[in-house]
Formats: sequence, C-alpha cells, structure tokens
Amino acid sequence: MSIQTIHVTASRDYDVLIGSGLLKETGKHLRAVHAPCRVAVISDSNVAALYMDTVLASLKEEGFETLPFRFPAGERSKTLDVVSGMLDFIANHHLTRTDLIVALGGGVTGDMAGFAAATYLRGIDYVQIPTTLLAAVDSSVGGKTAVDLRAGKNLVGAFKQPLCVLCDIDTFDTLPEEVFRDGCAECIKYGVLESPSLLKIFSEGTAKEHIADVVAESVRIKADYVAKDEFDTGVRRFLNLGHTIGHAVERTAKYSLMHGHCVAIGMVMISRAGEKLGLTEPGTTDALIRICETNGLPVSCDYSAEALLESALSDKKRRGEQITLILPKKLGACMEHTVPVSELESILRLGKETSV
Amino acid sequence: MSIQTIHVTASRDYDVLIGSGLLKETGKHLRAVHAPCRVAVISDSNVAALYMDTVLASLKEEGFETLPFRFPAGERSKTLDVVSGMLDFIANHHLTRTDLIVALGGGVTGDMAGFAAATYLRGIDYVQIPTTLLAAVDSSVGGKTAVDLRAGKNLVGAFKQPLCVLCDIDTFDTLPEEVFRDGCAECIKYGVLESPSLLKIFSEGTAKEHIADVVAESVRIKADYVAKDEFDTGVRRFLNLGHTIGHAVERTAKYSLMHGHCVAIGMVMISRAGEKLGLTEPGTTDALIRICETNGLPVSCDYSAEALLESALSDKKRRGEQITLILPKKLGACMEHTVPVSELESILRLGKETSV
Repeated sequence: MSIQTIHVTASRDYDVLIGSGLLKETGKHLRAVHAPCRVAVISDSNVAALYMDTVLASLKEEGFETLPFRFPAGERSKTLDVVSGMLDFIANHHLTRTDLIVALGGGVTGDMAGFAAATYLRGIDYVQIPTTLLAAVDSSVGGKTAVDLRAGKNLVGAFKQPLCVLCDIDTFDTLPEEVFRDGCAECIKYGVLESPSLLKIFSEGTAKEHIADVVAESVRIKADYVAKDEFDTGVRRFLNLGHTIGHAVERTAKYSLMHGHCVAIGMVMISRAGEKLGLTEPGTTDALIRICETNGLPVSCDYSAEALLESALSDKKRRGEQITLILPKKLGACMEHTVPVSELESILRLGKETSV
Repeated sequence: MSIQTIHVTASRDYDVLIGSGLLKETGKHLRAVHAPCRVAVISDSNVAALYMDTVLASLKEEGFETLPFRFPAGERSKTLDVVSGMLDFIANHHLTRTDLIVALGGGVTGDMAGFAAATYLRGIDYVQIPTTLLAAVDSSVGGKTAVDLRAGKNLVGAFKQPLCVLCDIDTFDTLPEEVFRDGCAECIKYGVLESPSLLKIFSEGTAKEHIADVVAESVRIKADYVAKDEFDTGVRRFLNLGHTIGHAVERTAKYSLMHGHCVAIGMVMISRAGEKLGLTEPGTTDALIRICETNGLPVSCDYSAEALLESALSDKKRRGEQITLILPKKLGACMEHTVPVSELESILRLGKETSV
C-alpha cells in the first residue's frame, strides 16, 4: 500500500505520512529526518503492550538508541505529575538537544510527550506516532501540546510542531468500536467545515474502507488552518466547530462521555441554533444528524441549557465578555458568530430544543 | 531620580525600566502597556513580606484586580510541583489570555512565574519585577524561563519574553551583602565580554554608587545578544562566559555556593586556561582576580579537575561530543573555543593550576 504525504507549513515545516505498515518502518522514516541519536519512546501501558516492541526494534535497526517510557493508560494520567516523571526519566538519561522524543499512542500520550519535548531544555525535537483515529486527525498535527489541571482540561501547554508524524492506519484495527467512532466525529467536523468528499464517505458509512483517504483529507484541512494561523489567534478557531458546546457537554458529563461523541452533539446543537437564528441553511441539522447516526455517534444530550451554560463559562475560550462560535452556513461551509456571553444561554436553548 | 529605559528587540519587543521608586508606580507602568485586568502577583515569602503590599496597592490604584500568590522562599521551591500549585491558583481564578502574571522577586520567582506564564493556556502575558541585582541583570531579561528537576537545574523551561521589566534599584538596599555580590559577578561578566566602563566601576569598587548605570549597561549588553539570537542557538552563548566551569563548581558544591560566586571562579579559571593555551592576553587573569576580589567574590575552589569534569559532563550545554567554551581574548573582548569533550579535563587542570 502506498504512503500518502501531507506537508504542514508552520514555524517549522514537516510531513505527515499516512499508510499501512508504517510502525515497522519507524526507524527508516525517522532516519530520513534525523541523524541516529537517543530516542525516548513514550507510550501508555495499553499501547506499549501492542506496539512498543515493533517501534523499538525498527529504531534500533537504523542505529537509534532507544529508551522506552511507559505510564498508566487513561486521561487521568494527563497531569503535570506524570509529565514530571517523564521529564525526570529523560533527564536521568541525559538526553541532549540533539536527541529525540517519540510519542507513541493516542491524544493523551501525544499531548504530554509533546509538552515534555516543548519544555525539556526549552525544547527538543519530537515525533508523533498516533495510534487512534482521533489523534491522527486532530492532536498529532498542528503543534498544540497540553496537560490537564485539577481546574480543567488542557489548561497548560505549549506550541511545538513535531519533526514528523507517522500515521499507521493498521493501528486503528485494534481500536474498540466506540474509540474509532470518536475519531469519526472530528473527521465529520472537517467535512462540515469544507469537505463534501469526506461527508459523502461518512454519509455512506464507509469510513473504514476509505480510512487512509479519510485521514489524509482531514489532515490536509487541518494543515491548511495551521499554515494560516499556527498560534490560534485567528482562523484556526474554525476548528472549534462543535467544540464550545461539546466541551460544555464533556464537562457537564464529568468526562464520562468521549470527546468526539460530545463534539458530534455540539455540532448538531450549534447547527440547530444556527437554523433557528436564520444563519444556517434549513435542513442542515437533519442531514448532519443522519451522518452522525450512520456512524454510531450521539446527536443529543439530556443536560439542561443552564447546566451547559455553567460548564461553558469556565471554558478557556471565553475572552472577556464576548464569545466566538463557529456554526455551519450549510454542510461544507462555516462562519464565525460572535455574541455577548449573555446570549450563550439562549443559543444553548435553541440548540437543545427538538425540531418539529 | 530619572528612569533609564533599555529597549529589548525580540519576537516581542519590550522595555526594561530602571530607576528608584518604581515599585510604588507599578500600576502606572503596567497601565502604559496593558489595559486593566486581573493580575496574579507571584512572590516568595521573603519578598512578599517586604514588597507585596506596595505592588498590590499601586496596581489597584490603576484599576487592576490583584490576586497575590506566595510560595516558600528558596531555590528548593523551584520545582514543577510548586509551579503546579501556581497554575492551579491561576486556573482556579479563571485567568484568561487577556489577564497578566507579575513575577515579583529574584531569579527563582522570575523563572517559575515566567514558566507558568509561558504555559498557562499556552501562554499569557507577564511582567518581571526583579528585586535582586542578579535577577535584574540576568534572568529577568531575555525570556528564558525555567524549573529544576531532581536530575539538574533549569532542565525544563520555555522561551517567553515579558511584556515589560520594572527594575526598582531601591530593592537592592535590602539584599544581604553576599546576595548583592552575587549579582556583581554577572555584571563583571558583561564587562569582560565588552564593557571597559563596567570594569572601571568594578575595579574601583564603586558599584553601589553607580548601581543604576551598572544595571542599565548590563541589560543593554544582554539585550544586544538577545536581539541577535533570541533562542540561544548562536552568539547568545557568549553570555555563558564563566558558566560552563561555574556550573560544574556549583554542582560539585551541591549548590552550597551561590551562582554568581561560582561564575566568578569559572571566569578566572577559563581565563587562566586561556592564557596557558596562548588564546588569552597575558595578565588578563591577574587583572580579573583583582576585580573579583575588590568586589568580595571568590576566585578559586578546592575541587579537583576530575570532580569538576564529572559535574560538567552532566551539563545540558554539552552537545554530542563537542563543547564550546567562551573565553576572554582580553578584558573587554571574548571568543568561542570549541573542543572535544575529551579535552575538557586538561582545560580544567590548566584553569585550576595556580600561576607562578
């Protein structure tokens, strides 16, 4: 199977390689962008059990010295405490600025290993090897790294672009069904933003058959936004489609619902509110609901507008007294809609209310 | 007394204000660069007792909402754990990207509060208010932030330029004598790098009488290097004069000797080695020793070259198998000298050996 390459333009350019069987070629692909060196390979307990040996063997074959680091799987590990242990490990092995960190895993691993790379010696190079669909199309590309605080998710972080991203689509075969669906929600988001071809695949429920193309098209769209606005002070906020409400749902559910599932709910709600405000083409919400349901994603939640509002107000995206929402004009085209925070509750109400 | 302003050119430009009585005008000077907002004022227990009230009152007068945060004084606080508490405090008060952090104190406070500012929400603005001579001429300018790990000092950090730096020279009046001297060593370093006027002041032992000029000239020199090489990949390494050996002395002494004192020893040792290698003008070391002694700084240590070598080899400045040392050609002009790590021991020996 051939490898698709998406080039990302940022403060440092890099390639995202997408294909089958990439893990066992990790060494070769790293060798193409970096001289042999010491490599700290960071992975959680679940992913390490599946793929660590393959990656280490491939790296050694190409002359890299490997230093595996494992941490307990789960979002609850995404703390400064665990990053601190990672950094101690890296420092105790005397990694220098010419060495590398590899993040092997899902979003939690990529975010934390990326943050370690961004801050160790004020920055050393790192490589993302996402092993979930969500990480492949979202957190592994674009240079956002993050750690949770007790006060909220992703409140600490840094911008740090990877040296390259290796996305082996075979790793998705081992994902539980609902974890795969979780990534589908972000891909559908890219479709709603600007890609009829992605929406066609998801409408037909054939994402698995076309997974390499789905990842490539999603990454291409994300790379476009990153190139235009690396540090997220402008158009990159379009990638927040479904996320303002989605995050509020996540928080209200105390993170018992998965991220992508909440984004699906958020997209449907903001689309419905948009229709009622006359900003979104009629029928958009129904079409979006069909696409989500075809892919096993939820389209509504039982929380009240008041509860969601309270959660939304602790979101770091709120700037002073205004909030910018992204909403679909129609499937494949979106717009910004900036409102006073005081209007957010009524938008949540419009989003919740079931259409006739 | 008039205020001296040094402009720093970097990825974000800013001014360093140097003068008497600046603390009680904190609000006015922040107001000149930022709209009223919430301000987390971070300080250690010692400095907070002396200056926190003055700074908070001045900020409130100009319409800022103040949130004081105190942590236990001392280098032992410079951990990710304490930064974590700082970040929790900031997050619990829902600071947004339009709010501010103020670092009020010495190097430990500036480094940690700067790191918190660099990473909270992936970066919010901060202001440095150094209250030690060392922090004023060194860590508060140039955007390096840092935290220690168990494995070593300053191993974690980020580049983040402040919004402005307020240096109230009155705060130096409360410094213990040896803490003041500690800062003198870094100023002498700037003199050895390129400033006969600074060396004249320190030769005559009149630094206290000319302290505003000493700070202004030191900051001017540092700002020059930062403008040319913000991210420390080139000429900024000249600022490491005396530091490779100085850090080795610090580590060997298990940090029982102060940083500036070790830098003084490091400058003398590298100068002596330079003379013996024929790279440094004869007489430079003797002149440098006189200047250090006039200002109460040590010029030698009892550690063996072997012990210092071992400490030096864990330094993050070592890149692969080469090491770049900065040494004086003469007082007021320096050069780079790159050698294989294997030659470092003989240089340490040359540096230690007492001249006839």
